[in-house]
Amino acid sequence: MTIKVAVAGASGYAGGEILRLLCGHPRVRSGELEIGALTAGGNAGTTLGAHHPHLLPLADRVLEETTPEILGGHDVVFLGLPHGASAVIADALPPTILIIDCGADFRLSDPGDWTAYYGGDHAGTWPYGLPELPGNREVLKDANRIAVPGCYPTVSILSLLPAIAAGLAEPHVTVVAVSGASGAGRSPKVDLLASEVIGSARAYGVGGVHRHTPEISQALSEAAQQPVTVSFTPILAPMARGILATCTARTTATGDEARAVYEKAYADEEFIHVLPEGRLPATGSVIGSNAVQLGVTVDERAQTLVVVGAVDNLTKGTGGAAVQSMNLALGWTENEGLSTVGVAP
Amino acid sequence: MTIKVAVAGASGYAGGEILRLLCGHPRVRSGELEIGALTAGGNAGTTLGAHHPHLLPLADRVLEETTPEILGGHDVVFLGLPHGASAVIADALPPTILIIDCGADFRLSDPGDWTAYYGGDHAGTWPYGLPELPGNREVLKDANRIAVPGCYPTVSILSLLPAIAAGLAEPHVTVVAVSGASGAGRSPKVDLLASEVIGSARAYGVGGVHRHTPEISQALSEAAQQPVTVSFTPILAPMARGILATCTARTTATGDEARAVYEKAYADEEFIHVLPEGRLPATGSVIGSNAVQLGVTVDERAQTLVVVGAVDNLTKGTGGAAVQSMNLALGWTENEGLSTVGVAP
Amino acid sequence: MTIKVAVAGASGYAGGEILRLLCGHPRVRSGELEIGALTAGGNAGTTLGAHHPHLLPLADRVLEETTPEILGGHDVVFLGLPHGASAVIADALPPTILIIDCGADFRLSDPGDWTAYYGGDHAGTWPYGLPELPGNREVLKDANRIAVPGCYPTVSILSLLPAIAAGLAEPHVTVVAVSGASGAGRSPKVDLLASEVIGSARAYGVGGVHRHTPEISQALSEAAQQPVTVSFTPILAPMARGILATCTARTTATGDEARAVYEKAYADEEFIHVLPEGRLPATGSVIGSNAVQLGVTVDERAQTLVVVGAVDNLTKGTGGAAVQSMNLALGWTENEGLSTVGVAP
Amino acid sequence: MTIKVAVAGASGYAGGEILRLLCGHPRVRSGELEIGALTAGGNAGTTLGAHHPHLLPLADRVLEETTPEILGGHDVVFLGLPHGASAVIADALPPTILIIDCGADFRLSDPGDWTAYYGGDHAGTWPYGLPELPGNREVLKDANRIAVPGCYPTVSILSLLPAIAAGLAEPHVTVVAVSGASGAGRSPKVDLLASEVIGSARAYGVGGVHRHTPEISQALSEAAQQPVTVSFTPILAPMARGILATCTARTTATGDEARAVYEKAYADEEFIHVLPEGRLPATGSVIGSNAVQLGVTVDERAQTLVVVGAVDNLTKGTGGAAVQSMNLALGWTENEGLSTVGVAP
Repeated sequence: MTIKVAVAGASGYAGGEILRLLCGHPRVRSGELEIGALTAGGNAGTTLGAHHPHLLPLADRVLEETTPEILGGHDVVFLGLPHGASAVIADALPPTILIIDCGADFRLSDPGDWTAYYGGDHAGTWPYGLPELPGNREVLKDANRIAVPGCYPTVSILSLLPAIAAGLAEPHVTVVAVSGASGAGRSPKVDLLASEVIGSARAYGVGGVHRHTPEISQALSEAAQQPVTVSFTPILAPMARGILATCTARTTATGDEARAVYEKAYADEEFIHVLPEGRLPATGSVIGSNAVQLGVTVDERAQTLVVVGAVDNLTKGTGGAAVQSMNLALGWTENEGLSTVGVAP
Repeated sequence: MTIKVAVAGASGYAGGEILRLLCGHPRVRSGELEIGALTAGGNAGTTLGAHHPHLLPLADRVLEETTPEILGGHDVVFLGLPHGASAVIADALPPTILIIDCGADFRLSDPGDWTAYYGGDHAGTWPYGLPELPGNREVLKDANRIAVPGCYPTVSILSLLPAIAAGLAEPHVTVVAVSGASGAGRSPKVDLLASEVIGSARAYGVGGVHRHTPEISQALSEAAQQPVTVSFTPILAPMARGILATCTARTTATGDEARAVYEKAYADEEFIHVLPEGRLPATGSVIGSNAVQLGVTVDERAQTLVVVGAVDNLTKGTGGAAVQSMNLALGWTENEGLSTVGVAP
Repeated sequence: MTIKVAVAGASGYAGGEILRLLCGHPRVRSGELEIGALTAGGNAGTTLGAHHPHLLPLADRVLEETTPEILGGHDVVFLGLPHGASAVIADALPPTILIIDCGADFRLSDPGDWTAYYGGDHAGTWPYGLPELPGNREVLKDANRIAVPGCYPTVSILSLLPAIAAGLAEPHVTVVAVSGASGAGRSPKVDLLASEVIGSARAYGVGGVHRHTPEISQALSEAAQQPVTVSFTPILAPMARGILATCTARTTATGDEARAVYEKAYADEEFIHVLPEGRLPATGSVIGSNAVQLGVTVDERAQTLVVVGAVDNLTKGTGGAAVQSMNLALGWTENEGLSTVGVAP
Repeated sequence: MTIKVAVAGASGYAGGEILRLLCGHPRVRSGELEIGALTAGGNAGTTLGAHHPHLLPLADRVLEETTPEILGGHDVVFLGLPHGASAVIADALPPTILIIDCGADFRLSDPGDWTAYYGGDHAGTWPYGLPELPGNREVLKDANRIAVPGCYPTVSILSLLPAIAAGLAEPHVTVVAVSGASGAGRSPKVDLLASEVIGSARAYGVGGVHRHTPEISQALSEAAQQPVTVSFTPILAPMARGILATCTARTTATGDEARAVYEKAYADEEFIHVLPEGRLPATGSVIGSNAVQLGVTVDERAQTLVVVGAVDNLTKGTGGAAVQSMNLALGWTENEGLSTVGVAP
């Protein structure tokens, strides 16, 4: 029996990345998984090749309108839509369809956080597509609705979780995360033009106002079983993909103690790699891969834990997490169609 | 009377930037300042044009050996040499020569810090070429030996000084600074190759081991009149120039209070620009300029002061500070040959 | 008496570059030249600092509407407007005002070329703001209307002119020109987003359809006194500024002969630099400068002249040529406010 | 039975790319193909992870010395060595081993060309690892020695071959090819430093002196059955991977005629994709993929065929061609472990 998958928002970056991974998924190659409707908003009626010329096998596919009718005939629906659009579509689809949402609509559990950061009414909370959270893998296996984490939260949470969960660091963390431009999406804006971004590093969303802040805080607070405050500063750097998050918190632990905690926490996680002492992560090592590379260090003079995490914001940070979640929910091996090998240099 | 200036290390990035600024300096145009010997190590005997083809007016100059004899016949000597080399040269030059050193040899006042971070014996301490430090401008006017600050310390200190000096923030600060590759110098190394750097953000010197750490701590501690610990993480981003430093510290102040402190502190500083609320700095705005642009914010939820500073590591971070220091020491207007206008986009 | 200058289109890249150069112009510093109205279309009412944060001294200036009334009160008006808009404004301004147009409206002399490449009616032909064309400098000294050349034509014409004028090469030339993204302007478009441009080289306007093609052909044909056909291919590369044009034509000359012709042709041109044998141009050497660097070579095996020219598309390719033209038309020294020194690395 | 493969030069870019592709090769996953010795020169004794942190599954492998003894125990040996080194190793290995050389030693058939461009004695000629050449696929199926084409020749030949073979264009072609920095290899050199490459386009090897020139000429001349002269200009652009080659030749054909010839020539070639009219290739669409994307246009005004080809220099331009050749020589399906899907943006 063939499982049919649709991708809504196929002409965007999240949609394109999901399709890139599906093109290489063994179940697509074997015919068990079939790539069905590809839908879009304003780009409906054009070919996928006009938007994603790198997806040669699907270049002639014509984009359809993003409607519940078109998506309804599928077993799996990926949503790569602007915030707020997912809830509307999801409401109109039967619960039997596995919906995997790359938007923010269903990530936050606290309606107050939702209203403060996104405005309007909270749509609800879905299982969080980060299998590496303690106990979460089991939840995802039974889910038919999954909220894929934000790209910054993915790397920030994974960088800090072991220390916070172990009580190794104070519950006040500082994250400064350098991101490539694709994290800002594909809508044309002056400040995302190549001329503006190339040759420049620029801070934005400074002072706790970035929407990913409560998402990071939510996961860490749950792990710590106490409120964890997060100072989060995103920085746009002249690259297309990748996030490098420098995560710090006061600690009295030594570097060896910290590294031991991380190595133990992630010993069984295929996609999380704690680098050996003396090696530090680079986003260039994880491009196109589903891996997260972590460098764990303690500045003993400043009594500060410094964990640097690297992730591809479009792969493990979005499309890879979506496919990983799908694999789990469909009962397949979690790593199918995903790789820990990046494209470098 | 003509003042003759020599540049040692002319084929490197610091030397090239000093020469770029001297080419546009009004005293060079008027003939009061004359560009004399340009010296190098291994590149002696070649033309400057082979190394700095952007310096067209000096392209045919032949590089000489860096020796006390050749440098000795000048009134001003800029040193753009590897750490450790400056002290040797300086010892051999008469005290009447104004020496402006872009290396680290004479920046640190604590011999223990020197030995811990650079190894070997401490050469001494020279007036610190950062006129914006309280009281320091007067010191530089009388100096004939000046140690130009490191590029990371320049932006980190200027970003944190007003808050630290005013007691507005806790004396434990976290600096995550994204730098272009020119900060690492011009010696060929695999990890500085374009293929390695382009498309990747990479942390290095993590955990308090970067040599600029004690330099930041030294200036902030002096301003605070108490020890200030610094957690410093440098990150290499795919750009040639520029540093964006995200500086955080716990605070109970509001954003308005913090901004008021900064605006007052820098009201008379031509090169330090506190951006209006809602605007954030980008390195792309300061390329080739001697300006530092600061965005001052408080995350009141996380009780954290977040100051983001942008600087051109080669201009205000090195060569511009050197020229600014020379202007002061020679009794000229501080901004001659320097600009607050960057080259963008 | 103070000369007042207005810049229309001040929030765009051409306008910003003109303003950057004016900020450093000695006649502005001396007060002889005054920066008057800065105008814009949709951005009227906002501050210049919101669009060009690198122009610190003008950051608080408020943009006015681009109208003949506002521009009319000035002695010099620079137009950095979309194609087609210049003619309308120019018609409404008195002939006593020196108008320097960075658009294409008045560049082409053949109405047929205009209609074929731009559509609609030909507005006329103004003196061409390329002083380095034979005899053209005198024309510009008397002009009160000047059409600044396109960025690609500037470097293509200067790279080929000596050979074509000397009959050294066949009158069929091939130009492949790699450009930074700022040449495409500041209007937000998906294919100019940083994510699309970074990490990718892309051809566009292939097959003789780019609008700069007839402009190149026009100048070369005039120099050759016979029609010169031009195969022109523009390529977008991941950089903000700069054009590197590789210009080829069949020749029976030797490399020495070709180089001699170029050296003689440009011996008195301050901004045109023929590199010595064995050195080749890079755009990185001319960023922010008004210089053009040329590498002249003959592939004797393939009987092909290969001239590679580097220019900053925004400086000598637009704003620098505009200021150079103004200097000439106002009777000032041609190089005031302009430099042959680039910002590198 | 397991086939054992060794990679010599594993710490370089060619070796790394071969290993990246092998990590995803289905025969490696199934165990039929085993990754044996990874060897290096100066890096012997270190781990692969220190050089290629993106190859996580092989990170702990220790590099061995590149010797015939170590390579001898394998069925397939990939050579990613400096020019000149391959011949020595190959001589010392038995003919039963399939050797696939990514160097130039065995690409040229004319000893005169070899001596003129590489110097010294010609080592010989091996089957050329470009299956898309007419008749060449059959040759490769029987080969046990294969010379992988150079990266520039791959895209240049494929861009021009159909037109040249069909007599559609004059036998004098001009190729201007923009390349990312990885094509220059991983040896540290000043002019390949990130600071030098970022923000700059630079020509090198101008005037027919680049070593890939005779290789392009050789293949085209064979297809045309007459000498084809090639004017080849390589340009370094600020990107890590990818070549965009703009290939021109005089023609009297129309665009439709030219496109028809190309579509027919490549109708059965999985990895060669002729874009539909109005679409033009970008290197960003082929990163990490084995595809070549071609845009075929005729400038009828200038009577010039303009074919723009995009390729990933490390994949189809090196490592992908090596794996494709291995697949053929081992009797496997040609596309195993290779993809036409790129990583974008």
